[in-house]
Amino acid sequence: MQQRRTITGFSNPLVKFLRSLRDKKHRRREKRFLAEGLRLLTDARESGKLPELLIMSKDRDAHPLLAALEADVVAHGGEIIEMDSAVLTKVTGKDNPQSVAGVFAEFDTKLAALERNASPIWLVAQAMRDPGNLGTMLRTGDAVGAGGLILLDDCADPFSVEAVRASMGAIFTQSLAQARWDEFLPWLRSGKAQLAAASLREAQHYRDARYATPCFVMVGNESQGLPQAYEDECDLRVTIPMLGRADSLNAAISAAVLAYEVLAQLNPR
Amino acid sequence: MQQRRTITGFSNPLVKFLRSLRDKKHRRREKRFLAEGLRLLTDARESGKLPELLIMSKDRDAHPLLAALEADVVAHGGEIIEMDSAVLTKVTGKDNPQSVAGVFAEFDTKLAALERNASPIWLVAQAMRDPGNLGTMLRTGDAVGAGGLILLDDCADPFSVEAVRASMGAIFTQSLAQARWDEFLPWLRSGKAQLAAASLREAQHYRDARYATPCFVMVGNESQGLPQAYEDECDLRVTIPMLGRADSLNAAISAAVLAYEVLAQLNPR
Repeated sequence: MQQRRTITGFSNPLVKFLRSLRDKKHRRREKRFLAEGLRLLTDARESGKLPELLIMSKDRDAHPLLAALEADVVAHGGEIIEMDSAVLTKVTGKDNPQSVAGVFAEFDTKLAALERNASPIWLVAQAMRDPGNLGTMLRTGDAVGAGGLILLDDCADPFSVEAVRASMGAIFTQSLAQARWDEFLPWLRSGKAQLAAASLREAQHYRDARYATPCFVMVGNESQGLPQAYEDECDLRVTIPMLGRADSLNAAISAAVLAYEVLAQLNPR
Repeated sequence: MQQRRTITGFSNPLVKFLRSLRDKKHRRREKRFLAEGLRLLTDARESGKLPELLIMSKDRDAHPLLAALEADVVAHGGEIIEMDSAVLTKVTGKDNPQSVAGVFAEFDTKLAALERNASPIWLVAQAMRDPGNLGTMLRTGDAVGAGGLILLDDCADPFSVEAVRASMGAIFTQSLAQARWDEFLPWLRSGKAQLAAASLREAQHYRDARYATPCFVMVGNESQGLPQAYEDECDLRVTIPMLGRADSLNAAISAAVLAYEVLAQLNPR
């Protein structure tokens, strides 16, 4: 296998392939995604995930973490691609030029792969449309010691560049599952679980509720919230007080405020 | 004053003016900003803020809230502009077509205009670069009953389309101030105030700290956090536990988790 290549032109097929990974349809077909920047790639490496392709700017500065990454990728049979920085910028998008990027195989996102008892908290997002919110939930999940994030129904793509970036590396540390509600509910009820939803309907104050492990903290779509039928299946419906004019919080904010309350109850000081 | 105009072409000077408001430099010069969508404009109206220009698609559906908005704008001497929806889409950006938009005069953002005792909580963001985070902090501020958001040093523009959108109307209900640290600190110390910062340095657990009104909850730049010198001036440095690999939360998430703890302590159930 050819392990090192240098690419200079914008029209190289590999450049086209990499650019295509910014598009969901192509990611689905290729089952590959793009992560950008040394920090993110180092998070991946430290979590035992290495890119199949490591793409570096020819003008990059030497860095011990980059050297370590490069060595690991080569040792595991991955490929190193060097590019003019102008070409790499074209790949990674103009808004945030980085001197390194990686192509990763998408992870298994089947519910069956989750070990529910491995963690006291799980986050669940239903029809979450904003990739930044989704990445932020992964990041929050990492912080509260959640096992992972379960995406229900039609969510934004967790492997989009925006979600991966907002996750700040948590895409590599949190488990991720994608399922329809009709698969999720039987799976949930096949074992121990408390399903707690952020809700506005007949809900109790989120600090009065008593959370139990493993607690699945669920938030709904950014503008619709959760369907009533889903809320009816929950063990707890909890509400976060809102004193102002607005009747809702950002979905990722709701998830974080709830998850930190669950954490405080499960780990009393 | 001509109160109603119809615009059909893409090259009309007004279309250029409206498009230019997507750019910070032009907003600064014009001291005007753009808010899009009936919901946001209705929030503005209900908060007593009316646009100087109300721009509507010619193909819009009739709506009682839109009719009320139109009547109020006319009654207050504002101007109504009708456009082909293709032109309006050009103005508001393709990603999120709306059938109505408004041009507002920017608000006074001087510290001196804030009434610190009007609210028990204030949010403070230092060098926050992401307009979505900034808008989300405004939205969270509304929810926790904060008086407003104080932006320190070089923050993203709160009047950008992205920040206004993420605020979900809170740009019209929360007070907003912009200041350098060197102005902020003397202002803060000129009256009653507790300055509480999210910190990683010698900080106490955020649930063990005792908050006092008016409490100023401060978070720092997305990648750098707060400068040490700023933290040294704080009355409280508090930390939110992070159990995972990452050493930080999203800045807007940190602010929300802290602000909800302050709220819980100030409003015990």
